[in-house]
Amino acid sequence: MQLKTATLINDGKAVKLGWTTGETARFHALWLRDNAPDGATRSATNGQRLITLLDIPADTKLTKAEISAAGDLTATFAPEGKSVSYPAAWLVRHAYDQTPARQAGWLAPEIETWDAGLQAKTPVILHEQGKTDRAAFGQWLAAIRRFGFGVMTGVPRQSGSLIEVAEMFGFVRETNYGKWFEVRAEVNPNNLAYTNLGLQAHTDNPYRDPVPTLQLLCCLENTVDGGDSVVVDGFRAGERLRAENPHGFALLTRHCARFEYAGSAGVRLQSKRPMIELGPDGEMIAIRFNNRSAAAFTDIPYDDMADFYAAYRRFAEIIEDPAMEVTFKLKPGELFIVDNTRVLHARKSFSSSGTRWLQGCYADKDGLLSTLAAIEHGQKEAA
Amino acid sequence: MQLKTATLINDGKAVKLGWTTGETARFHALWLRDNAPDGATRSATNGQRLITLLDIPADTKLTKAEISAAGDLTATFAPEGKSVSYPAAWLVRHAYDQTPARQAGWLAPEIETWDAGLQAKTPVILHEQGKTDRAAFGQWLAAIRRFGFGVMTGVPRQSGSLIEVAEMFGFVRETNYGKWFEVRAEVNPNNLAYTNLGLQAHTDNPYRDPVPTLQLLCCLENTVDGGDSVVVDGFRAGERLRAENPHGFALLTRHCARFEYAGSAGVRLQSKRPMIELGPDGEMIAIRFNNRSAAAFTDIPYDDMADFYAAYRRFAEIIEDPAMEVTFKLKPGELFIVDNTRVLHARKSFSSSGTRWLQGCYADKDGLLSTLAAIEHGQKEAA
Repeated sequence: MQLKTATLINDGKAVKLGWTTGETARFHALWLRDNAPDGATRSATNGQRLITLLDIPADTKLTKAEISAAGDLTATFAPEGKSVSYPAAWLVRHAYDQTPARQAGWLAPEIETWDAGLQAKTPVILHEQGKTDRAAFGQWLAAIRRFGFGVMTGVPRQSGSLIEVAEMFGFVRETNYGKWFEVRAEVNPNNLAYTNLGLQAHTDNPYRDPVPTLQLLCCLENTVDGGDSVVVDGFRAGERLRAENPHGFALLTRHCARFEYAGSAGVRLQSKRPMIELGPDGEMIAIRFNNRSAAAFTDIPYDDMADFYAAYRRFAEIIEDPAMEVTFKLKPGELFIVDNTRVLHARKSFSSSGTRWLQGCYADKDGLLSTLAAIEHGQKEAA
Repeated sequence: MQLKTATLINDGKAVKLGWTTGETARFHALWLRDNAPDGATRSATNGQRLITLLDIPADTKLTKAEISAAGDLTATFAPEGKSVSYPAAWLVRHAYDQTPARQAGWLAPEIETWDAGLQAKTPVILHEQGKTDRAAFGQWLAAIRRFGFGVMTGVPRQSGSLIEVAEMFGFVRETNYGKWFEVRAEVNPNNLAYTNLGLQAHTDNPYRDPVPTLQLLCCLENTVDGGDSVVVDGFRAGERLRAENPHGFALLTRHCARFEYAGSAGVRLQSKRPMIELGPDGEMIAIRFNNRSAAAFTDIPYDDMADFYAAYRRFAEIIEDPAMEVTFKLKPGELFIVDNTRVLHARKSFSSSGTRWLQGCYADKDGLLSTLAAIEHGQKEAA
């Protein structure tokens, strides 16, 4: 992709670029200067910016904008008298001269929402393949980015294996539940997870801020009747709620819920965050939903509370709709991972005869996405 | 605190309560039912809710609301025919029948912003006292909640001591930098932190999502000239920007910045989040500011970009204003902790003769706040 034209506009405060493809975009002089890729602006070793915005004169202008023989931009800035080159492809990738048409709750392009239809297409990888086949591992991680959910089979059937799995792509988030925790029926449990009760679809630890963004659950034994696992796409549930009841969707995004957990000595966790979180630009970025740890909601005005509760109820109904569920019964050596900011998980109640022993741990998405980006970047470089 | 009156309103869909103090508040029947503290609704063992909203009839009403001899509320719900008692003090604490007057960027009451004047009042605790004196430790944690910053002295001068400090109140967040990392001048550093350059005041790892919400930096050796540490209250900087330039403040809250780090093999971290983050109700909840890892900002419309950059520049100027800075030079055995979602830290450049050896690690605020809440709760129970 090459540039064809570069015209200074607004007295050199900006430049209008045209590519050979016919696309055009305006860039501000100050933005270009701040993002200059030259060695005095960015470290060649680690890519970090070496200067601050205050090192760049506030009255920065372009005095010249030329297209090189290769079709790239060479820009000259006053008052610094500095010339910098920008690849045409980099510029088109970072163009900001259009405002996308979006509605509140829009999703990033790498996200695909799903319902029960994902059942047959669940992303699965063998533990051994994940360890030895970098491309296959990258595909599995990409599927987790896309669907917020993945399964691994053939995990060594020994206590703590899930930690080794988490470390294949990232880092464990240790909490008051430990580096990992045992999920099995207990006498006097400090959490209802440690019973044989069914658990409504939920995200984990909404009373934590930040919540753990990934959860892994690994099966070591499972001889009970019942205890099936269920996952539900919270983003799809949000989309359905918005389509049916835009006002209710808005209420769940605009008002904070509260969550709390004080089931163990020395632990009193509390948070105040919305059930459906939007970024400042309206992007849907997180779901928090957990009947067990929902505290009294006190941040909704009286006049909105009835509608808020109606929206909360409808959201719960959508989440409980079997048409939303992917279900499976974990066998020993099987593990699933969920994006805990998006995908809810549930379990059916199970018999008190037999043994159901899972281990769970938390990790964070930034590590997974970083590992994935590095694999993808390596593939691009090799291609 | 006792109740005096309870009047059903809106056909039993709500109740209006009056306390002996003259206060009044309305509560919805459904809200009361959902927050019932009885043993069938909440686990007596761990406090978790045993039912879901879908277990509560949508047409729930109050048929009776009575004041007990102790001044508490006893409410009877239809169609369940269930009676539940609510302590008068709990009700007043959870009343939601008023909308507080707030401007965008309001702060929670436990937050107090500061400038250079905090220098003389820096919260400091001796390591030994933190370990043995629960009340003093609680006060130090409360000061960190209030100011986002604290110092510990007398930390054992051995590698890894900071981990033991983090575990006094919470859990370490391990990242690609390790469980902890060495901060000293290196040849070919993968991060500019590992040089003797000065570093502009910044929050750490804004390219991570979620960011680590706490950072600890512990000094093991310091014989260089310079290298002083500086901390700045990002919330105060936000308040100053808002007072001077409300439009600029709004731009930094409404549009996402982008951050990235790819300084090490296998690591490509990226995030898209605002520099000043507000909750959906306008509460100021996080600051992200880091010139080294700021990526090209591509989520601001062309027509807003010039004003966005002007606001970014002014925010940087406020952050660099010496009137905002608390400065100190860490001695061996001294550690400081910052709320990395609020307080920026900087260091002055230092000489290449002598040794400056710090160790850093990340942790999360939820653990610290939980430990603090448990200490405060214990003190309340004991009182």
